[in-house]
Amino acid sequence: MTLVKAYAAQQADLPLGPFDLERRTPGPKDVEIEILYSGVCHSDIHTARNEWGGTKYPVVPGHEIVGKVSAVGPEVTKHQIGDIVGVGVFVDSCGHCTNCSEDLEQYCENGHSQTYNSFLQDKKTITYGGYSTHIVVTEKFVLKVPKNLPLEGVAPLLCAGITTYSPLRHWKVKKGDKVAVVGLGGLGHMAVKLASAMGAEVTMLSRSPEKAKDAGRLGAHHFELTTNPENMKKMAGSFHLIINTVSGQNDYNAYLALLKTDGVMVLLGAPPEMEKVSAGSLIRGRKSLVGSLVGGIKETQEMLDFCAEHGIVSDVEVIQMDQINEAYERTISGDVHYRFVIDMASLKK
Amino acid sequence: MTLVKAYAAQQADLPLGPFDLERRTPGPKDVEIEILYSGVCHSDIHTARNEWGGTKYPVVPGHEIVGKVSAVGPEVTKHQIGDIVGVGVFVDSCGHCTNCSEDLEQYCENGHSQTYNSFLQDKKTITYGGYSTHIVVTEKFVLKVPKNLPLEGVAPLLCAGITTYSPLRHWKVKKGDKVAVVGLGGLGHMAVKLASAMGAEVTMLSRSPEKAKDAGRLGAHHFELTTNPENMKKMAGSFHLIINTVSGQNDYNAYLALLKTDGVMVLLGAPPEMEKVSAGSLIRGRKSLVGSLVGGIKETQEMLDFCAEHGIVSDVEVIQMDQINEAYERTISGDVHYRFVIDMASLKK
Repeated sequence: MTLVKAYAAQQADLPLGPFDLERRTPGPKDVEIEILYSGVCHSDIHTARNEWGGTKYPVVPGHEIVGKVSAVGPEVTKHQIGDIVGVGVFVDSCGHCTNCSEDLEQYCENGHSQTYNSFLQDKKTITYGGYSTHIVVTEKFVLKVPKNLPLEGVAPLLCAGITTYSPLRHWKVKKGDKVAVVGLGGLGHMAVKLASAMGAEVTMLSRSPEKAKDAGRLGAHHFELTTNPENMKKMAGSFHLIINTVSGQNDYNAYLALLKTDGVMVLLGAPPEMEKVSAGSLIRGRKSLVGSLVGGIKETQEMLDFCAEHGIVSDVEVIQMDQINEAYERTISGDVHYRFVIDMASLKK
Repeated sequence: MTLVKAYAAQQADLPLGPFDLERRTPGPKDVEIEILYSGVCHSDIHTARNEWGGTKYPVVPGHEIVGKVSAVGPEVTKHQIGDIVGVGVFVDSCGHCTNCSEDLEQYCENGHSQTYNSFLQDKKTITYGGYSTHIVVTEKFVLKVPKNLPLEGVAPLLCAGITTYSPLRHWKVKKGDKVAVVGLGGLGHMAVKLASAMGAEVTMLSRSPEKAKDAGRLGAHHFELTTNPENMKKMAGSFHLIINTVSGQNDYNAYLALLKTDGVMVLLGAPPEMEKVSAGSLIRGRKSLVGSLVGGIKETQEMLDFCAEHGIVSDVEVIQMDQINEAYERTISGDVHYRFVIDMASLKK
């Protein structure tokens, strides 16, 4: 064990603060990473504040991690000291279930180990995330970060990037497809960039007219207000795929009406209360309402390589570690374009 | 125009009774059919009683039709006088929209012509269904009935058969797939027969223990009670596909929990009120909640040929035309195994 610096929530109602964290000594297949940047995902806030229940305090959030390899175990072959690498939402999985053997570790049937507030595969060792100077991860779950991208913008790709890339690929978005994105936040802005890079004709659906300019800058070809009933009527039957990133209250049926025959709406966020669905909305047009959870390790690497090829990173605002509590408040109020990323050098001082 | 005999509902609260119907003289591409059997679908009852609204009285229901070609127009090439043919849920469509050009006339973007209580493509001529001695249909929408099947059991294939066959094919059910069927009625019994013939391992999910024996006879490999919480827990993550035929109140989330990763639940019935869906149920396991509406003409012919190959027909109870009102009551109370079919010879007398 090594003592490293971290920032933790000690209780739901307390701000995050400095915390001395015991990090495991790298085992034979482990990679030790000096963390350079850690993205701030809304899940971090939900967990730090125990809004989903089940938070094990103290919790060190952070699952959008970019860093430099600082040590490797003797059996590690994939990474070398000095490599720039990434760690996403999970750090291990059982490795032998059907889903793991199909590179779908995110759906591991025996439970994957999430990057924080979870257990390693021994089902005993609690995991701590990226708001820390170092992390130790088994090599398979460490991603190679392409050299041509600004690292602070890469961090959010490990969650927001793969969460939007995976469904766009799984539901086979191709050149000319009409894709709509609901909600322009951390996930939404990545969905626009990625779908656009895949050649889709992208429409941003939003309740906020002031987001139109940004949507265009990010790559959206159209911007439509969902608050305008005429717009909604005009768009009926328009889209092959809708990426719905909203985790607040939703009107699924209103969006399902915008799909073409065989169209698919992908849910990436879970509203606080269940939404009603009209079976008729699905039956007329053989439509699909589906969900998707991040992506597997193989697909995450593919996403990073795709982003390198297309020069895509997240739009970020870099903060110092001690600005984290303010960043949480601003994230909650939607005052971020589009992801806070902690410069982890600020934790060492 | 020719005057033919039919049975019609004249008003929502009146029983069906004899009706003199004007049938069009066959045009150049029309086929005139002497109807032998007409299945009784629950939709007939909803429409006759205006339970969905929009019924145009008098209405002649019936969209599971088997008959013998009695006349053909001079340009008809597909059918000959004396051929045994079928007519299903619709009798025409625009023919030029994207969906029609992909053999998905059921989703015609300009509105297909349903077999009854609808309009022909002139948007003026009301359609009348199979509770009649004759029907005239444009040749493309007339199916060839294979010679080796008992005709009374073929009639329900034109609606119940294709409605279950189409999603089983579209979501690519193959040998060894685990398929569950919810609800053992007109649709459910066909889903069991067809999925089983496709090589799937079929589980009937039901609230009624007395249906177990019949489920097995129809081809189900397993029977599980959904009222037993232990059973439901045991089945979590079991199925590739669930065919949900229930049009009454439902619990979508309970069934979604039974799907494997990437599993699909197909809704074929529309509950009277919208059901709640937990986004988390879909996200964890990349599951799909989808709907499906009958099938196109090409696929309906494929289904009839598949049924001929596998010796599949619907289980029916043949009735006389004047028993129709009693049959409606028995259908509503679930007292039918599994479809009433009218012997249309009984109307001529």
